[in-house]
Amino acid sequence: MALNVVALAGGVGGSKLVHGLAEILPEGKLTVIANTGDDFEHLGLTICPDLDTLVYTLAGLANPQTGWGRAGETWGFLETLETLGGPTWFQLGDRDLALHHERTRRLKEGQSLSEVTRHICQALDISINLLPMSDHPVRTIVDTDDGELAFQDYFVARRCEPRVKGFRFAGVETASPAPGVIEALGTADLVVLCPSNPWVSLDPILAVKGIRDAVVEKAVVGVSPIVGGKAIKGPAAKMYSELGIQPSALTVVEHFGDLLKGMVIDTQDEHLAIDIEALDVHVRVTNTIMMNVRDRIRIAEEVLEFGTEMMAR
Amino acid sequence: MALNVVALAGGVGGSKLVHGLAEILPEGKLTVIANTGDDFEHLGLTICPDLDTLVYTLAGLANPQTGWGRAGETWGFLETLETLGGPTWFQLGDRDLALHHERTRRLKEGQSLSEVTRHICQALDISINLLPMSDHPVRTIVDTDDGELAFQDYFVARRCEPRVKGFRFAGVETASPAPGVIEALGTADLVVLCPSNPWVSLDPILAVKGIRDAVVEKAVVGVSPIVGGKAIKGPAAKMYSELGIQPSALTVVEHFGDLLKGMVIDTQDEHLAIDIEALDVHVRVTNTIMMNVRDRIRIAEEVLEFGTEMMAR
Repeated sequence: MALNVVALAGGVGGSKLVHGLAEILPEGKLTVIANTGDDFEHLGLTICPDLDTLVYTLAGLANPQTGWGRAGETWGFLETLETLGGPTWFQLGDRDLALHHERTRRLKEGQSLSEVTRHICQALDISINLLPMSDHPVRTIVDTDDGELAFQDYFVARRCEPRVKGFRFAGVETASPAPGVIEALGTADLVVLCPSNPWVSLDPILAVKGIRDAVVEKAVVGVSPIVGGKAIKGPAAKMYSELGIQPSALTVVEHFGDLLKGMVIDTQDEHLAIDIEALDVHVRVTNTIMMNVRDRIRIAEEVLEFGTEMMAR
Repeated sequence: MALNVVALAGGVGGSKLVHGLAEILPEGKLTVIANTGDDFEHLGLTICPDLDTLVYTLAGLANPQTGWGRAGETWGFLETLETLGGPTWFQLGDRDLALHHERTRRLKEGQSLSEVTRHICQALDISINLLPMSDHPVRTIVDTDDGELAFQDYFVARRCEPRVKGFRFAGVETASPAPGVIEALGTADLVVLCPSNPWVSLDPILAVKGIRDAVVEKAVVGVSPIVGGKAIKGPAAKMYSELGIQPSALTVVEHFGDLLKGMVIDTQDEHLAIDIEALDVHVRVTNTIMMNVRDRIRIAEEVLEFGTEMMAR
């Protein structure tokens, strides 16, 4: 099997499937397009949470308890910042901080985000092709009952508490895809929508000029981030409910419209298969919960097998 | 004894005597004017090495082995920065880094360096009045056989190896003393020149407009940073030699011209007392090496006693 695969991914959930795909695909066959809508400026640093989660996961450095941040992290910086009355609402471990510093230093030198990301991957022996969706800043803004909030204000500082009314991606109108994104999609045999938040992880990627048009040409399979009406992690289900939509694998399929050729759903949601297939989207039912690396590899194998079937249809 | 004392200080040597003075003077009686000529920008942060050494020493947080940096420091940030190919020539511990971040954040918000310094002292329960020499950036430039070098390039990156030809303090022409500096000198009964490098720790302070003129009015006593022809720490002796001057307590006195009324020299240098007194500067001979806190307090007591004598002359 020498498929060219492109995966669209957000943070924790996406990185698990990407990790599985990276374990089984030959070198040079996997490109990941990462959401950068969560990126923000904090303490003078450019922080890219989804890229970082992907990097730490692929480098084998991720904290297995949280899914984000680093294993064996130390917290001297943040503890001291607190004693000095500095802003500590965003968790910054000492080792994690070095990545933000080095990225920021290189960006200020004039390197692009994709150049910096390539450097970081080389330094950490990550051999897959990890691309930010764009080198231009795109910032997810969450419209809520408390007004518009920058994504990390909503997600971290406000713990997703304000009721969601909608989303916009500031800067997306003028952002172009990062170098390599459209090319990778052009040569892709299969595009995988990782089990990431449709509203704030995958929509920002698809909103970048040219990406959705390039994706829709391809055999596209998704893995539902909603299982049994709940999100495995994060606020996706809460967002669906607040927007007046029942959170389910079915409404995830509906969300992506004509994009999907096939959808992997959890065994808990098998009853939704008929309704999804009525939308002309093929269904694969399996246990989609990824508790360990073996699960990640197993699901990646199923996704590739299912995707190969979809390519033939 | 309720003297108003102002001490002029650089980093490691200066902070030891300042610590001793702080232990014995009543609250409100000690003002320290710190050199900021060593300050520099690194990784987007404003770093003030002498202020930090004074802060850590006075807060009881200093690393007793090095004299600079913090005790019990961790190095996750710098270790990780190294794996990412970042600049690691300047030692930045995880806890130390938080201080630079918080200072920089407040400076960017528009606070002055003296406001930020006051905040840091409050947060760390430092009750003496610690002032930067100026709120305006003054940067020591070392002229060497390899051309002009920014101070930290000379001091840390080049390990003081290039041969020194001279010094200048960029920005000093337009820098004014920080708020409180001239006032503190005006009400001072005694001014102490700490055993800091005359060329790059004390000269920058004295070069700020109005400071030397205010100091010269007072009873000024110094403690020689040169003992037995050598500097206790740092490149002072090497600088004297490279400038064609014999490093000694005598040439330190000559360096300050008409400023000093009295000089504390080490027992090793007792033979220099006659030559120093011939310059109309009184001499106190004692063991000036500060190995522990008890030494710091003992020398501070001697300095105050000697200074009180000088006030009467």
